[in-house]
Amino acid sequence: MPENIPKDELLTVIASEEPEKIKLALEQLHPSEIADVLESLPKKERDILWKLIPFNDMGDVLSHAQDPVRAGILEQIPAVEVAEITKSLDADDIADILNDLPDNVLDDVLLSMDIQDRQRLASVLSYSDNTAGGLMNPEIVSVRADVTLDVVSRYLKQKGQLPDQTVSLMVVDRENTYLGVLPLAVVLTKNQEATVGEFLVSEINFPADTPAIDVAKAFEQRDMFSAAVVDADNKLLGAITIDDALDVIQEQAQHTMRSMDGLADDDMFAPLLVSAKLRALWLGINLMAAFLASYIVGRFEDTIQNLVALAILMPVVASMGGVAGSQALNITIRGLATGQITKANSAILIKKEVGVGMLNGITWALVVSVVSFFWFNNFALGVIIGLAMVINLIVAAFSGVVIPLILKKIGVDPAIAGGVVLITVTDVVGFATFLGLAAVYLNI
Amino acid sequence: MPENIPKDELLTVIASEEPEKIKLALEQLHPSEIADVLESLPKKERDILWKLIPFNDMGDVLSHAQDPVRAGILEQIPAVEVAEITKSLDADDIADILNDLPDNVLDDVLLSMDIQDRQRLASVLSYSDNTAGGLMNPEIVSVRADVTLDVVSRYLKQKGQLPDQTVSLMVVDRENTYLGVLPLAVVLTKNQEATVGEFLVSEINFPADTPAIDVAKAFEQRDMFSAAVVDADNKLLGAITIDDALDVIQEQAQHTMRSMDGLADDDMFAPLLVSAKLRALWLGINLMAAFLASYIVGRFEDTIQNLVALAILMPVVASMGGVAGSQALNITIRGLATGQITKANSAILIKKEVGVGMLNGITWALVVSVVSFFWFNNFALGVIIGLAMVINLIVAAFSGVVIPLILKKIGVDPAIAGGVVLITVTDVVGFATFLGLAAVYLNI
Repeated sequence: MPENIPKDELLTVIASEEPEKIKLALEQLHPSEIADVLESLPKKERDILWKLIPFNDMGDVLSHAQDPVRAGILEQIPAVEVAEITKSLDADDIADILNDLPDNVLDDVLLSMDIQDRQRLASVLSYSDNTAGGLMNPEIVSVRADVTLDVVSRYLKQKGQLPDQTVSLMVVDRENTYLGVLPLAVVLTKNQEATVGEFLVSEINFPADTPAIDVAKAFEQRDMFSAAVVDADNKLLGAITIDDALDVIQEQAQHTMRSMDGLADDDMFAPLLVSAKLRALWLGINLMAAFLASYIVGRFEDTIQNLVALAILMPVVASMGGVAGSQALNITIRGLATGQITKANSAILIKKEVGVGMLNGITWALVVSVVSFFWFNNFALGVIIGLAMVINLIVAAFSGVVIPLILKKIGVDPAIAGGVVLITVTDVVGFATFLGLAAVYLNI
Repeated sequence: MPENIPKDELLTVIASEEPEKIKLALEQLHPSEIADVLESLPKKERDILWKLIPFNDMGDVLSHAQDPVRAGILEQIPAVEVAEITKSLDADDIADILNDLPDNVLDDVLLSMDIQDRQRLASVLSYSDNTAGGLMNPEIVSVRADVTLDVVSRYLKQKGQLPDQTVSLMVVDRENTYLGVLPLAVVLTKNQEATVGEFLVSEINFPADTPAIDVAKAFEQRDMFSAAVVDADNKLLGAITIDDALDVIQEQAQHTMRSMDGLADDDMFAPLLVSAKLRALWLGINLMAAFLASYIVGRFEDTIQNLVALAILMPVVASMGGVAGSQALNITIRGLATGQITKANSAILIKKEVGVGMLNGITWALVVSVVSFFWFNNFALGVIIGLAMVINLIVAAFSGVVIPLILKKIGVDPAIAGGVVLITVTDVVGFATFLGLAAVYLNI
């Protein structure tokens, strides 16, 4: 990318603490880049930088910042100022920001707006920001199907401008019922005597309560640039553009990655205590799982006492099961997220993953058996650890597919809870089979 | 989404193996949805379904399919047919597909095309598909800055149509030097006597060798719908549209998630042996790490012999370190991927993460100490395990940040190798501190 100030350089300017220099640097940045810099800063520096951002950019910067960062900034701005700096944004972006405010502050902000802006917002705010209604921009240009392109052209000239990122006009009938879209390219290239109806594209549309993630997927699949949002009677409410879909996909991807470690919406520079608390819960759940595994090991105290080699080797069995299980788990979580796993093919996936688990179980069990045999000069031990590994890797592969399927069925996000449940299974099964087989076959 | 056949139902139709029924169902689907269904099928069913897809949709289906799935299908199509089914696609989409072909087949496909199509492709194929040049569509409509909007309007009417997804015209000078973009909305709404130059938007542009991921990020940050690709002399080569950026972001997100388990580009229904081989490598690396941890435990054989409780509790210390470390690791990998971690702030992140590790280490160490004390009725054991846990969680948090930073510096993808290196560290440190402290302070 040309002409960008490298971020490191900018952070050096910020570190210089010279307000004039910082202001000059900020003026050269796109609001989204300023938001990005804010996210890279610890809380204190973040608050200082915020005050130096050009007033006209503040709204745009807020709309590009991630939720926890935005919430931290909003806490410090009076309601009147929030109304002021968001004034120039699209209604969907304003709604997005206002959704981060506590209810009482939200009311104050709405009261500080003029009545027109407030009405403009009302329709978007009445939908959850995770739905098509919350993503839509209610400011759309619609035309009727029975007019000629010439009429449309003259109407647009008269308007003098279109909302940002308009790529199509919405086509409706006399009762505002949604009929389809008319790409701007058509108005520019086709015979002006033709009617709108002749070139109407019947693109997919979304009821206002469609989940945002489904909207985003449809955009991605169909290479659409904009789509209509309609109410239950198919009346046109607004339009969603592809840039909103892109934001949803980006957020979703980050959320899935984060939730795999119980990090939820952890902001990189959230205050120490906030981060520690968010993660402590997860460590606590893991601790219970770990104690369960310890309890299993404890049942074989005498066996270990007689052959300490078992204690030395047991982490290998558990760890290999954990990795093999995670591989199947992640394939499954991804498949569920993209909708590629359905009732019809989950049995095939289980069969395949168990096959992979068995194959890799046997392969590596041979290696582990040989190493263990030579290490402890104990043939039976080599056989037992090999057997335990094959069993654990098969169980791990099976669990890696089945656990997320079950979690999803009972309404728990597999990306959040899948890992800890799986590791509990692979640890318990790994320790129990290895030590159990040893107790039986080594006669100890 | 309205009118969609639920995928489960379609898969049932496919299972019926009645070609006519399947063909009918396929006709109602968008090519991207057919691609999605293909990805949900095991290899055998996939090949059967492919042959039933309407000929005109085949190119679009291929362009929407994921790389490994696409490569599997391409293997079975003769070069002449590849040329035929991709004919109607945009040059960037064709290039994307052809890049999956072996070199000798690629040559055959190019020879089967007519000369015009081949030339159209040459410019895109000369760039890697991970660059702006590989993403661009060379078929663009450009206008000169000194003509009036009226001239542009008449030129467009005469053309009669624009390439799919044109939202702006590219503005160039007499020597084809890129100057900026002219949104279609401007041509439609502004005074026709004005010149193009008056409304030219100087949007960011990309040299052809810009990495695709940087292009995608810029699109996401700047809410652009299209941008120009230029050569070293700033001559216009083509245009990238936001739908291409969206694909890049989606692929990147999936790739990061997959590579965290060494799954690389594993296709859900890749043949058993292919999947097993891809993952076996990863299990092998983990095995070496596990044996290293076992070796450490082995050094304390006598200590364990004297107090088997140590073997029972040691998995708890290692496991808690693993989870705490992964939390820091994932925050860091994500920060590196989004570019939010830089030289200037990595020290702050390390300090913060170590703080979180210490805080959570102390919290859970207290719990573990008390449980261990009551379980084995051994006060010293309780103190030692608590101490070991605090040390391991601090080391884990520190390693979670530092390991990916080092890996990145030496050119290894942290998302691929970070996890196994981290677990090696937390296992080794966990076992060594716990058993080591026990050996020293329990005098055994």
